[in-house]
Amino acid sequence: MKAEIVSIGTELLLGHAVNTDAAFLARELAQLGIDLEHVATVGDNPGRLKACLLEALSRSDLVISSGGLGPTLDDLTKKTAAEVLGVDLALDEGSLADLKEYFKGRHMGENQLLQAWLPKGSTPLKNTVGTAPGCLAETASGKLLALLPGPPRELEPMFRDQLAPLLARRTGCAIVSHMVRTFNQSEGDAALKLGALCDGANPSVATYIDELNQTYVRVTAKAASRAEAEALADPVVEQVKELLGDVVWGVDADSLEQTVVRLLAERGEEVATAESCTGGLVAKRLTDCAGSSEVFRTGLVTYANEAKTRLLGVPEDLLARVGAVSEEVARTMAEEARKRAGAAYGIGITGIAGPGGGTPQKPVGLVWIALACPEETYVRKLPPFGGRYPGRDALRQRSAGMALDMLRRRLQGRPVVA
Amino acid sequence: MKAEIVSIGTELLLGHAVNTDAAFLARELAQLGIDLEHVATVGDNPGRLKACLLEALSRSDLVISSGGLGPTLDDLTKKTAAEVLGVDLALDEGSLADLKEYFKGRHMGENQLLQAWLPKGSTPLKNTVGTAPGCLAETASGKLLALLPGPPRELEPMFRDQLAPLLARRTGCAIVSHMVRTFNQSEGDAALKLGALCDGANPSVATYIDELNQTYVRVTAKAASRAEAEALADPVVEQVKELLGDVVWGVDADSLEQTVVRLLAERGEEVATAESCTGGLVAKRLTDCAGSSEVFRTGLVTYANEAKTRLLGVPEDLLARVGAVSEEVARTMAEEARKRAGAAYGIGITGIAGPGGGTPQKPVGLVWIALACPEETYVRKLPPFGGRYPGRDALRQRSAGMALDMLRRRLQGRPVVA
Repeated sequence: MKAEIVSIGTELLLGHAVNTDAAFLARELAQLGIDLEHVATVGDNPGRLKACLLEALSRSDLVISSGGLGPTLDDLTKKTAAEVLGVDLALDEGSLADLKEYFKGRHMGENQLLQAWLPKGSTPLKNTVGTAPGCLAETASGKLLALLPGPPRELEPMFRDQLAPLLARRTGCAIVSHMVRTFNQSEGDAALKLGALCDGANPSVATYIDELNQTYVRVTAKAASRAEAEALADPVVEQVKELLGDVVWGVDADSLEQTVVRLLAERGEEVATAESCTGGLVAKRLTDCAGSSEVFRTGLVTYANEAKTRLLGVPEDLLARVGAVSEEVARTMAEEARKRAGAAYGIGITGIAGPGGGTPQKPVGLVWIALACPEETYVRKLPPFGGRYPGRDALRQRSAGMALDMLRRRLQGRPVVA
Repeated sequence: MKAEIVSIGTELLLGHAVNTDAAFLARELAQLGIDLEHVATVGDNPGRLKACLLEALSRSDLVISSGGLGPTLDDLTKKTAAEVLGVDLALDEGSLADLKEYFKGRHMGENQLLQAWLPKGSTPLKNTVGTAPGCLAETASGKLLALLPGPPRELEPMFRDQLAPLLARRTGCAIVSHMVRTFNQSEGDAALKLGALCDGANPSVATYIDELNQTYVRVTAKAASRAEAEALADPVVEQVKELLGDVVWGVDADSLEQTVVRLLAERGEEVATAESCTGGLVAKRLTDCAGSSEVFRTGLVTYANEAKTRLLGVPEDLLARVGAVSEEVARTMAEEARKRAGAAYGIGITGIAGPGGGTPQKPVGLVWIALACPEETYVRKLPPFGGRYPGRDALRQRSAGMALDMLRRRLQGRPVVA
């Protein structure tokens, strides 16, 4: 089955929103073995939307739209879809009852009622989070058109719980895709390490950069069943891991931090953090993970020197002598965080995230990252990555990632400082 | 000038990456007064890419591609673009020199050299961050095709510093777009408050949801010059602000946290944080903002009861009596954070972010948020938003946002608890 996504919303064409729905739907369709060949984005313009839906239905078996189902005037999807299908809109009593239930005890604006009108003959898809229901319709020639709401927290459960089961019944072939994830490995070097492995067609092996600018390798296999596809993919995943070595922190793992939380939980150990330039980012990333309360109890954000002394006992004369951004202060922060929290590991980070605040001796982008362990404290310095300042956000994410990766290496028995 | 974006990469169609490039380019094109009507996404497939580029060039004056310029085998954009343009690839000496400079003193793989080959006759666009140069080519019929790299940190400066100036010379008309941003305001109610204002065509007024699920209102005006467009937009922006009231925290402001940092800096005041379920997210969001070191010195992540007592002096018997997730503990955390850091304001957050850990008395999603001010401490409770559990990430972002918005309200002289 060939599929296509049509993302609707002028906010996407003006860049006021990022199309995360397309990424979500793409992942889910791949899991169902449905080939996604195009994603098109159009504004809240009925003419262009109609042209786009017609073109998509002409070349694909399944078209999924996202957006434009809400109660406001620019929400034109259902009306336009009904035209494309050649049917009228009809009031769906179930959706109306859901809307009334949603607004029970609260004021419901007149405009909300519009949301209960769906293309005649379509199957309603209940919105368990927000107000606008979706629907799945079939064209005269047997193609499928699904209309989903735009907000990701509404679209995602609607797809997973309602649309996906309807689609799964219609497909036969399975695609399995595994991601081998790395930290501090350039994409070009990864491709060189993998060599001829990247030439394979089934499984295919390809390198990518994730949203944190880290390389990952995707191994994708196609077969008649999920089990056969897995059997094709598995040995290739093992080869990729072996060729890349220590930089690999996980396969199909959610995130580096989730991997760290899991490894700590398995050992019954804890980590404590003391952050300066990352300002709580390591703590935030650790506590993004469900289960983090078992392995992370205390984090300190000591953005000012006074806070480093008051909360961590970093000696004032050390700060005066070597400065807050120094190997010694990073080391002390990690060791004191560890000791004061009674944790097995302590992370200390101090640096100059920029864009301001650099000096010739300590340029913007200089970050010291320490990991205190029971036996020894390891310290690393940024930048090693090509040496150019990547901007404040990227530098903070890299610094936090480096700290997490040092701990990951320790917990997996790899060299902490490569 | 009509423009179209073609985003290239199988990772986008498999949902392994989110198309942030399209959002960035869309914003930048709008600023240049260039109408973006379509965004198309295709995989690393030469046939479909070629069809897509040809279709885009048939209906638009400017086509910008992102992705597929790197050193790996799936990077096919330049070869395909050269076919579409009817020219060969030629080695660009300037790009070759840049590549050699980039790899100076380090190993350069053979595959890296491929990046210096560009469609013959095109204008090279230097990559100041990574290795793959871009280019701008003109078709026989005078249409423009720009090839940009995929990684956002490479694409963004290349567009802004090199492609945008080339494009600006070619356009006449200006679009001005302003965003009125709110917190804790549903999109439907915003539309009702705005009423007939949403019917206007120039300026147009439309409601949207941002990535943190908060409503914003976009006012867009078109005119021959930027100044004329501004003069059309400004009074409508003022009307929107007046109709929406206290929920508005800024216009065109980067973020709620940047607004808070700016307001604090203007008053020479500081905030300190004590976070439990948000685990450093408020600290992270504050320190995302350049300039935060002037207004934020200390943040505590007291994820465990023991840490609340040790670092904040929350009495053990209080924790035993009312529990960590309680109005009293949130209040004490905020007040102690404020007092211990010597800051004007203190934020305290304690709650159950889930998905586990709820009880009938204290369900998942219950969060207490306190703001300690010199004169008084304010406390709010989540959920007020429709009452459904939105998931861990969204709940943590909302809780952090609520704390930041309470402080924003205080600093703007609005009622802290609406």
